[in-house]
Amino acid sequence: MTNHTEIKALVFDVFGTIVDWRSGVAREAAAFLHRYAPQLDAFEFADAWRREYSPAMEEIRSGRRAYVRLDVLHRENLVKVLNRNGIVGVPDAEIDALNLAWHRLDPWPDAVEALHRLKRKFIVAPLSNGNIRLMVDMAKRAGLPWDAILGAEVVRAYKPSPKVYSETVEILGLAPAELCLVAAHNGDLAAARRLGLSTAFVARPTEHGPNQETDLGAEQAWDFVVDDLGELANQLLPEA
Amino acid sequence: MTNHTEIKALVFDVFGTIVDWRSGVAREAAAFLHRYAPQLDAFEFADAWRREYSPAMEEIRSGRRAYVRLDVLHRENLVKVLNRNGIVGVPDAEIDALNLAWHRLDPWPDAVEALHRLKRKFIVAPLSNGNIRLMVDMAKRAGLPWDAILGAEVVRAYKPSPKVYSETVEILGLAPAELCLVAAHNGDLAAARRLGLSTAFVARPTEHGPNQETDLGAEQAWDFVVDDLGELANQLLPEA
Repeated sequence: MTNHTEIKALVFDVFGTIVDWRSGVAREAAAFLHRYAPQLDAFEFADAWRREYSPAMEEIRSGRRAYVRLDVLHRENLVKVLNRNGIVGVPDAEIDALNLAWHRLDPWPDAVEALHRLKRKFIVAPLSNGNIRLMVDMAKRAGLPWDAILGAEVVRAYKPSPKVYSETVEILGLAPAELCLVAAHNGDLAAARRLGLSTAFVARPTEHGPNQETDLGAEQAWDFVVDDLGELANQLLPEA
Repeated sequence: MTNHTEIKALVFDVFGTIVDWRSGVAREAAAFLHRYAPQLDAFEFADAWRREYSPAMEEIRSGRRAYVRLDVLHRENLVKVLNRNGIVGVPDAEIDALNLAWHRLDPWPDAVEALHRLKRKFIVAPLSNGNIRLMVDMAKRAGLPWDAILGAEVVRAYKPSPKVYSETVEILGLAPAELCLVAAHNGDLAAARRLGLSTAFVARPTEHGPNQETDLGAEQAWDFVVDDLGELANQLLPEA
C-alpha cells in the first residue's frame, strides 16, 4: 500500500470520473435527433456512440493503426452510428458541430470544488484518452482548474496501454508511487498499478445510466476507495 | 496582417517574455555561490548558464541528438559552467536542487493579471522550450493561469524548429492565423510567422540586464507590438 504522504501529483480519468458524459452527450444530441431521427432516444444514442469508443481505440492500441486524436475517432464513430440508424444526408458542418458534444460535458457535482482543494497541495491533471483541445474546451466551460493537460495526445497512445502511465510518470519527474491515478474504472486503475502508480477508485454508479452493471465497486484493494472526490480530498488533506 | 477578431488562442514564450529568468536564477544561485565560489557574481553566473542554452538545444534541433527535456539540458549546462569555474566536488543532490532554479522564476509584474484577463476570451498556454514539469512548477508558484502546457515536450522538438509551431496549431485544431505567438524575441516570432501564425511582440528590454543590446524593439511589422502584456490585453479585449 502507498504511503499517502508521498503522493505529489494526481491524474484523473475524465469521461465518467470527472464528467457525466452520458447526460451531456444526450443533451447535446437532443436537438439534432429531434430534426433527423425523432424516434431515437437521446440516451440510447449516447450509449450507441460510446460503444464504438473502445473498439476504435483498440485499433491504435494494437498497432494496426497509427495514433490519431480522439476527436477524429469520435467523428468516425458518429458517422457509423448515423449510418446504422439510416440518418443520411447530414451536412458535414452539422456532424462537426455534434462531434463537439464531448467538449461540452458537465462535471459531476463534487468535481470542481474538490479539484480546487486538491490543487493547493498536488499537481492535478487529466489523464484522459480525450485530446488536448477537447480537454481544454471542457475545462474552460466547466471551470476545471487543471495544472496541465496530460493524457493520450501528449504520449500518442491510448489507455490502458502501459506507455500512457509510464511516460506520464517520467514527464512529471516522479517515482511511480508519487503519482496517483483517480478513476471510476477498475481496468484503468489495474493498468496504472501494474506500472507502480498509486490508485484511487471513485464510485460513479450511474455513469452508464440507472441500470449500470460494471464498476459499481472497487475490485481490488486500491489505495483509496471513495464515493466522491470531496471524500478523496478529505483523506488526502487531513488538515483541512 | 491578421484580422484581430479571428484569434482564438494565445501561446507565450516564457523565459524572458513571462518570467525574468536572469534575476530569478541569480537569486536562486546566490546561496550556492556564497558557499562554493564567493568570488563569482550571481548575475554573471546566470548569464553564463544561459549562454549554454541555445547551443545545447541546437544539438537536438540539428538532429545530432534525440530529444531530451530541458531539465536534462539545464543540468548538463550547469555542470559545464561549474567545471569551467573550477567548482568541483559538489554533491549531486545540490546540483539537482540548483537546477530547479528555473522552476522558481518570478513573472514580470504585468504578466499574471494580463493572463487572467486574456484567459476569459482566449485559450492561453505557454509555448516554451521548458519541459512540462518545469512549466507546471513555475505556474503553481507564480499563479500563471494556463489552460494547458504546450511547447517543446509535447511535440518533442525545440523552438524555432517549424514543427513546434505547426504541430501546436494542429493540436489546438486551429487555422494558423487563429493562433498568436506572444514573445519578446524577434527570432521566435519570425519562425512562427513563417508557419502562418499571428504574432505579438512584447518589449522586455532588461531581460538580459541593463546592457541588453538585442530584441530592444520590433524588427518586423508584427501584428501587435506592445510594451507589456496589459497593453496586449487592452488591444485584444477592446470592450474591457
